[in-house]
Amino acid sequence: MTTDPTPEPNWLNEREQRAWRGWIALQAEINRRLARQLQRETGLTGAEYAVLVSLSEAPGGRMRVFQLREAADWEKTRLTHQITRMVQRGLVAREPCTEDPRGAFVVLTDAGWEAITQAAPRHVAHVRHWFYDALSEEQVDALLDLSRTVLARLPEADRTMGEPCTQEVGGLP
Amino acid sequence: MTTDPTPEPNWLNEREQRAWRGWIALQAEINRRLARQLQRETGLTGAEYAVLVSLSEAPGGRMRVFQLREAADWEKTRLTHQITRMVQRGLVAREPCTEDPRGAFVVLTDAGWEAITQAAPRHVAHVRHWFYDALSEEQVDALLDLSRTVLARLPEADRTMGEPCTQEVGGLP
Repeated sequence: MTTDPTPEPNWLNEREQRAWRGWIALQAEINRRLARQLQRETGLTGAEYAVLVSLSEAPGGRMRVFQLREAADWEKTRLTHQITRMVQRGLVAREPCTEDPRGAFVVLTDAGWEAITQAAPRHVAHVRHWFYDALSEEQVDALLDLSRTVLARLPEADRTMGEPCTQEVGGLP
Repeated sequence: MTTDPTPEPNWLNEREQRAWRGWIALQAEINRRLARQLQRETGLTGAEYAVLVSLSEAPGGRMRVFQLREAADWEKTRLTHQITRMVQRGLVAREPCTEDPRGAFVVLTDAGWEAITQAAPRHVAHVRHWFYDALSEEQVDALLDLSRTVLARLPEADRTMGEPCTQEVGGLP
């Protein structure tokens, strides 16, 4: 916890505030619906689906645990518990890594392949239903454009944020 | 879990796929940075910050537990644990509800008010730094436009999906 003084508030203007709250609401409303509908139709949680997708796109349906962690951006403990539950459900298996005793692989089982093969077309249908069916081509282009813009600038923004406590107000005009 | 047959895949085209993955990546990258920086500078987790914001915007800094749950869209168990941790940290207090023995209030303490007062300007500075500083006015307008469009269509999309979504969709402020 820093001992720096609290910066002078530079509150968002009304348009920025509305756009920010809209973006937060959009994430919450869409993600909740996708997760609920997926679970209703397939029995998979959103977390299970994310792990299955990552594995299904990896060569041989196999990833090191740390790779899965990077892909999902989860804390280690959370991913460990998640994998344990999925092993118990038969969706994935743990395999030791011969070269690195500390490492381990997670690999899709046949049941895991079957689950993701069944779930993926449904998930895409849900994404269309709640998200894309509402948007024009121009809006999709705008979304792609703004996502790219923000993502492309992240490395620079990370550099200028620096270490915590070294700046009073990072990046403010 | 349904026994419906898996629908014929209607995969996203390349542009839709890129826009969807961009949106997913944008959420993950921005939310992670905001949460980490907030924790570094204030010691608050993203979950604690969200609860403090909701309470600080409620009359008297006080909400019923079910209202907080609707605002945060959390599972009951998760919110109960979250509130218990925040009571232990002195940020909020539980108060019984005299009219409804099953109900309870959660109310900001002085320390909770102090924490949100210190944290909010920092959080806004982070949002500017990683998000708004990258975007033109036109991109902010486009974001607001597409968020509104998707959110406004959710009630209809819920109806046509079949089982109605019981929760009201909040409009944009």
